[in-house]
Amino acid sequence: MKINLSRLVQDIERYGEYGKNEHGGVTRPSFSYEDHQVRQLFIEELKEMGLEITIDGAANIWGKYKGTGKKKGSIVIGSHLDSVPNGGKYDGPLGVLMAKEIIKTLKEHTILLDHDIEIVSFTAEESNDFNLSTFGSRCFVGRLTAEILKDACDSKGALLSEELKKVGGGLDKFPEINKMHNNKKAFIELHIEQGQRLESANISMAVINSVVGTYRSVVSIKGDPNHSGTTMMVNRKDALTAASEMILEVERYCKAKGNVVGTVGRINVSPNAANIIPGQVDFILEIRAEAEGSIQEAIASIQDVWHEISDRRKVKVVQEVFLDQKPVLLDQVLVSVFENTAREMNEPCLTLPSMAVHDAAHMASITKSVMVFVKSIGGKSHCPEEFSEPEDIEKVGNLILQGIIQLDRTLSEKEIKSV
Amino acid sequence: MKINLSRLVQDIERYGEYGKNEHGGVTRPSFSYEDHQVRQLFIEELKEMGLEITIDGAANIWGKYKGTGKKKGSIVIGSHLDSVPNGGKYDGPLGVLMAKEIIKTLKEHTILLDHDIEIVSFTAEESNDFNLSTFGSRCFVGRLTAEILKDACDSKGALLSEELKKVGGGLDKFPEINKMHNNKKAFIELHIEQGQRLESANISMAVINSVVGTYRSVVSIKGDPNHSGTTMMVNRKDALTAASEMILEVERYCKAKGNVVGTVGRINVSPNAANIIPGQVDFILEIRAEAEGSIQEAIASIQDVWHEISDRRKVKVVQEVFLDQKPVLLDQVLVSVFENTAREMNEPCLTLPSMAVHDAAHMASITKSVMVFVKSIGGKSHCPEEFSEPEDIEKVGNLILQGIIQLDRTLSEKEIKSV
Repeated sequence: MKINLSRLVQDIERYGEYGKNEHGGVTRPSFSYEDHQVRQLFIEELKEMGLEITIDGAANIWGKYKGTGKKKGSIVIGSHLDSVPNGGKYDGPLGVLMAKEIIKTLKEHTILLDHDIEIVSFTAEESNDFNLSTFGSRCFVGRLTAEILKDACDSKGALLSEELKKVGGGLDKFPEINKMHNNKKAFIELHIEQGQRLESANISMAVINSVVGTYRSVVSIKGDPNHSGTTMMVNRKDALTAASEMILEVERYCKAKGNVVGTVGRINVSPNAANIIPGQVDFILEIRAEAEGSIQEAIASIQDVWHEISDRRKVKVVQEVFLDQKPVLLDQVLVSVFENTAREMNEPCLTLPSMAVHDAAHMASITKSVMVFVKSIGGKSHCPEEFSEPEDIEKVGNLILQGIIQLDRTLSEKEIKSV
Repeated sequence: MKINLSRLVQDIERYGEYGKNEHGGVTRPSFSYEDHQVRQLFIEELKEMGLEITIDGAANIWGKYKGTGKKKGSIVIGSHLDSVPNGGKYDGPLGVLMAKEIIKTLKEHTILLDHDIEIVSFTAEESNDFNLSTFGSRCFVGRLTAEILKDACDSKGALLSEELKKVGGGLDKFPEINKMHNNKKAFIELHIEQGQRLESANISMAVINSVVGTYRSVVSIKGDPNHSGTTMMVNRKDALTAASEMILEVERYCKAKGNVVGTVGRINVSPNAANIIPGQVDFILEIRAEAEGSIQEAIASIQDVWHEISDRRKVKVVQEVFLDQKPVLLDQVLVSVFENTAREMNEPCLTLPSMAVHDAAHMASITKSVMVFVKSIGGKSHCPEEFSEPEDIEKVGNLILQGIIQLDRTLSEKEIKSV
């Protein structure tokens, strides 16, 4: 039994038409017109497949393919259908459309599993105008509550609570979400790697055993804004040259260590005029690592060097942490099932941590969860060039198909995680 | 004979009320409501002093104190009355109000010089919303023509030609400007130093013998925008870490050389998101030096290092020059007159280049010009903290007063510069 690759590839292309722009990129944030269109299309198609549809308070779309009923609960497969602005066709949709393809394949072979198989499409996984990424899964596991969200609105003042209602969700439906946890026995998310580890190793896929922790702080450097012509070099307190040294130290440390990645991606310079020495620089420091200890070690070491820089340059540095997401260990039983399945299929497969946060990292708090990555060409993601080879997609699809069949056998009736 | 310091200080405070904001700063760009008010006040006061008023096409305000007529032409003293947003009370007004004070002093002592003495307040000297700094003096010397300016408008679409009319100027009056050159025999501009050379030397004033050249280019660095979590350090082409190294090289070179100042004051990072490695950085490089050779040497040396950085980091660097203002030598006869006057007055006085461009740098193209700087406390300028001590202002005022009397004697009738 194999998935139907050409049907899946057609699905990816077809969904990719919604929000497609002149650069060939996809702009389909949750709650946009294009998102509304795709939701409608997706629900129609799940209905045609005979699935039982549920839309929860966070507007996550669930479709159930009933099993024999011999074992309670469902094995859930899914990801998200929203995209970043000018993103690609794969980040998100691949995981959802693969879930659809796997259920179609099972149905065509008239295979009923002992568990129900559920497909899920989470709402607003990507960074969005509500500043709430992995929104759907965080709501589902209870990390975002109706209380927290009641006044949330986007930059144009649109209320999240109203946007949810338009797509079948609603804060009033949040109390029902908790009751849904009990029957979720496992969660599997397929995603493109968004990096080059698989490509470098020339291997098609990886089973993901953990999700990195992410630390982010706003770093503010105060120097002295002064005239760029009349202020001699020795009299300057240039916030940007100080920031430059600090940014290079982040890079130097992380390159040397290898077990941590560090980035300054956002920077704001004030007054930002050609003829004024920068008086203030604010930037965001991001550190990610598989181990919490590596993150803490990086921060401590980088800060030591930063102190030396700020003392020497006589600028003031203030740091405010606004994200401290701990690393998440995924379910080791599920990891083994997929590793073993790959081995039985004679498919080379790596076991890796995920360097990005996905819905699975949140789902892991309520059920056994695992991820599978497929090779990304050039490691590209969040851009029109995002691409995974059809043959790799086929391999990973068959791995998940066989893995689920294996899992259906392995999971005992008692293994529903208590909440 | 001495200037009346308390009257001058009162004038500075009084003019500083127009456009004063809650931080104690002055926001009075040319053509603003506050600029209109100050122009009216200034013209009224010049009229009361009995001066002959002329407003030229660029809305520069001229007031003439007639001399004996024994020598043709006039000795002009002045600066500008406009300010940057949230600027100070001294940058510009000090030079204009000192000119008024000197003429008042001469009148009170019923002293008629052989030349006419003229006061000038140039329009829009500061960077402004029309992107035309040193506007008034550039128009006056013919560097900005009616043809160049006919469609100029600010960011809100207001036509410069219309704004000029509201304050007595107008592009139709530009042909008359040329005819005004012939009777300008010398130009003296007093300005705050805006730097700390005088403060460091603990000296009240300086005669300025040249104005530095200024070179500006837009530098664009193209790297690879990629996911900050999934892209390992070794696979990155981070445009911001490349820019950081390049910015530090500008600082290192200029500090080591001493005869040149270099600044990156403006920077733009794209996409500027916490979780995306910067794909592009655009910044403005500015280099200033007294000698053109020092500027060229700096650019060549910095670019050599930049090439090494871009090659090593595999990023693309493109540079586009948009300003290449050559250094200006001021009039050495006038410099000597003021140096000698200071010596005779037993006032310590430095001879320095100006590290910023002023109206005098343009006036030097049509008449003998010189500048005098007064010590700035903390080198502050373009901010509410801008300040010069009254005793320093008094000293420099008396230097200019005596210098002009000296100059009136020294300049022969033939010395009007031919245009």
